[in-house]
Amino acid sequence: MTNLAKELTDMLEALGSHGKDPAGGVSRFLYTKEWIDAQRYLEKEMLDEGLDVHFDEIGNLFGTLKGSKYPNETILSGSHVDTVGNGGYYDGQFGIVAAFIAIKHLKAKYGQPLRNIEVVSMAEEEGSRFPYSFWGSKNIVGIAKNDDVKDITDFDGVPFVEAMRNAGFDFRDDTKGMREDLKAFVEIHNEQGNVLEAEEKSVGVVHSIVGQRRFNIEISGQANHAGTTPMGYRKDTVFATSQMVSEIITAARKHGDPLVATVGKIDVTPNVVNVVPGNTLFTLDIRHTEKDALVQFTEEVNEILNRLAKEHQVGLTIDMWMDEDPVPMDKNIVDLMIKQCDENGLNYKLMHSGAGHDSQIFAPKIPTAMIFVPSRDGISHNPAEYTEPADLAEGVKALMGALYELAYKE
Amino acid sequence: MTNLAKELTDMLEALGSHGKDPAGGVSRFLYTKEWIDAQRYLEKEMLDEGLDVHFDEIGNLFGTLKGSKYPNETILSGSHVDTVGNGGYYDGQFGIVAAFIAIKHLKAKYGQPLRNIEVVSMAEEEGSRFPYSFWGSKNIVGIAKNDDVKDITDFDGVPFVEAMRNAGFDFRDDTKGMREDLKAFVEIHNEQGNVLEAEEKSVGVVHSIVGQRRFNIEISGQANHAGTTPMGYRKDTVFATSQMVSEIITAARKHGDPLVATVGKIDVTPNVVNVVPGNTLFTLDIRHTEKDALVQFTEEVNEILNRLAKEHQVGLTIDMWMDEDPVPMDKNIVDLMIKQCDENGLNYKLMHSGAGHDSQIFAPKIPTAMIFVPSRDGISHNPAEYTEPADLAEGVKALMGALYELAYKE
Repeated sequence: MTNLAKELTDMLEALGSHGKDPAGGVSRFLYTKEWIDAQRYLEKEMLDEGLDVHFDEIGNLFGTLKGSKYPNETILSGSHVDTVGNGGYYDGQFGIVAAFIAIKHLKAKYGQPLRNIEVVSMAEEEGSRFPYSFWGSKNIVGIAKNDDVKDITDFDGVPFVEAMRNAGFDFRDDTKGMREDLKAFVEIHNEQGNVLEAEEKSVGVVHSIVGQRRFNIEISGQANHAGTTPMGYRKDTVFATSQMVSEIITAARKHGDPLVATVGKIDVTPNVVNVVPGNTLFTLDIRHTEKDALVQFTEEVNEILNRLAKEHQVGLTIDMWMDEDPVPMDKNIVDLMIKQCDENGLNYKLMHSGAGHDSQIFAPKIPTAMIFVPSRDGISHNPAEYTEPADLAEGVKALMGALYELAYKE
Repeated sequence: MTNLAKELTDMLEALGSHGKDPAGGVSRFLYTKEWIDAQRYLEKEMLDEGLDVHFDEIGNLFGTLKGSKYPNETILSGSHVDTVGNGGYYDGQFGIVAAFIAIKHLKAKYGQPLRNIEVVSMAEEEGSRFPYSFWGSKNIVGIAKNDDVKDITDFDGVPFVEAMRNAGFDFRDDTKGMREDLKAFVEIHNEQGNVLEAEEKSVGVVHSIVGQRRFNIEISGQANHAGTTPMGYRKDTVFATSQMVSEIITAARKHGDPLVATVGKIDVTPNVVNVVPGNTLFTLDIRHTEKDALVQFTEEVNEILNRLAKEHQVGLTIDMWMDEDPVPMDKNIVDLMIKQCDENGLNYKLMHSGAGHDSQIFAPKIPTAMIFVPSRDGISHNPAEYTEPADLAEGVKALMGALYELAYKE
């Protein structure tokens, strides 16, 4: 293992020790003792490295390497410190560790940058403890509204506000906008998919984050005795659903990458072996990097559903309960990352992100980009999450290249 | 309403009052207080009618109108007195009430028969309280094994044996065979399907009870992130299942009546909107009146499943956990029922039964036949179960015709 790879895995392990779950992996929820311990550990590392360190009101942690020429311009890098329940060692925390180590190496190699480089350990992204996601990044860019969380509670009934205050933090003044010094954000994250692994690449340069639409589709027919109801007298919602799902997924495959369509959930009523099912509900999740493609595929899905509902003489309700637009990354940063990857001989691939990340919160506000490292077997949100140390190091080299371009060059 | 129709509905109501469920319908489980009350009510009615009344060891209730010429030959008619939870007023209890009233009217009209006619209120058929079905009829024909129930308990943990003894009954000597005087069994039952209603018939003469095969089919693929896994990298078990179900049901429809095929239950794992489902289990229930057709369709199903599992590169396990052969009704009784229906101008249809009944337990032992009356909207096992009083009366006329042929003629 190279020194850089070892440095990364050692620090991931140290950070991952805060919230290590006896049931496996890391469970580190917003404002818990484990979360505070993790932030304190990072604070100490940053102080030891000589960075200017501060928490913001709500608990995002920042460590700054001051710039010599443009002290009011900051290049930010990092990710979220919270995890899902029984999460892995990479999701979120690798983005923090990588930014910290990148800054350390850049400082050692190139000295003081022209602009500030700042590592951020963001308070929250996953929405695992409270029913709210992106609390960290939304506060940084000034779009978090205190009203959105003031009445929510966690799975044990603990109010958000109480948890926040007990951890030593409080609301920011949410009438204020974002910090004016932030000029760019670069996040490194594990891919959470298997594209890099399958194509044997070490680094992904992300050009955009997909938009998502999610639907609940309910088919209503007639519950009947499975023995006494001839096929011709049935309104079988599982039969109707089977043809709908088959056609939708087939259409998505025909459409081709980067479109993905997933029917992840099916709830049949009454769901017993000897009753023709009178009601079936299924979900559909579609994602694409282009909004037009999402709109067009939605129309295709509607056509399929309506045609088959008519054919099967079943009732149909379609509820689109999520509609998030795709988020393109900043073209300039993407171009300079590609340049740096080429110059440094990195084994990279230009790709999109199929999952949501803090970067999508930053991108509408400041130039933003992302780097991926591979996920073994595409696994994430699981103790089995893993990235080869050599790939972690390659990812950090790509990150260093980007930060160098952004902070050390005029 | 005719007198006969009124007599039937009054007695159904009286019997249905024992076990009337505040949540709707009738809940009358084996050996409960409600069950005992119902049997005692019937016992009194039979005694009042001057029948010879007795319970057997396990709690089947019999009322006999003695024959003049062949006192050792008995024509049996009746059904089961237990219900499912929140069952209707017709399933089971109509068969008892109809047999009782048929005997009463035959006696009034024709006097003493040549052979005994006996009404039976059977202890149990549904398997609703204990995990055992046909306890009543299986004891009558001598195939119930005491060992099969001696260790089972109900949903509250009450042992079968304790419930039986507390109700005043006990095991029969299960080394003994069936009564030798039983020469035929005729059961009348509500159809529990919508064929008679759809075809506007009042009476169904059943020529056979379908055989059934039930399968658990498990598809194993790979759980993946719904956003980060391109379509080409997926082993999507819901997609595979959708095509399997679609092809199986389409093949069954093409095969035509009386084949029915039902996928009543689907369990997806992990069953969340944003995960490509790594595992899907579904059930298949197929029924037909001919064993050959069941065997042939099973082969067809196997071909479909194996071909699609290979195409989708998913794992497949097929578990056939029920395999019951079709049961033909006695041709002689069917023929004489048809003759009677024709002579009496009844609006009948020759048909099969898609559901299981006590008759299938009797049929391999003694000549057996069944009569159906319509079920409104095909509904059964539900408080909404209903048959028009006029159709109840038509059914009883068909039953009287059959009993007359069997008990009053040489």
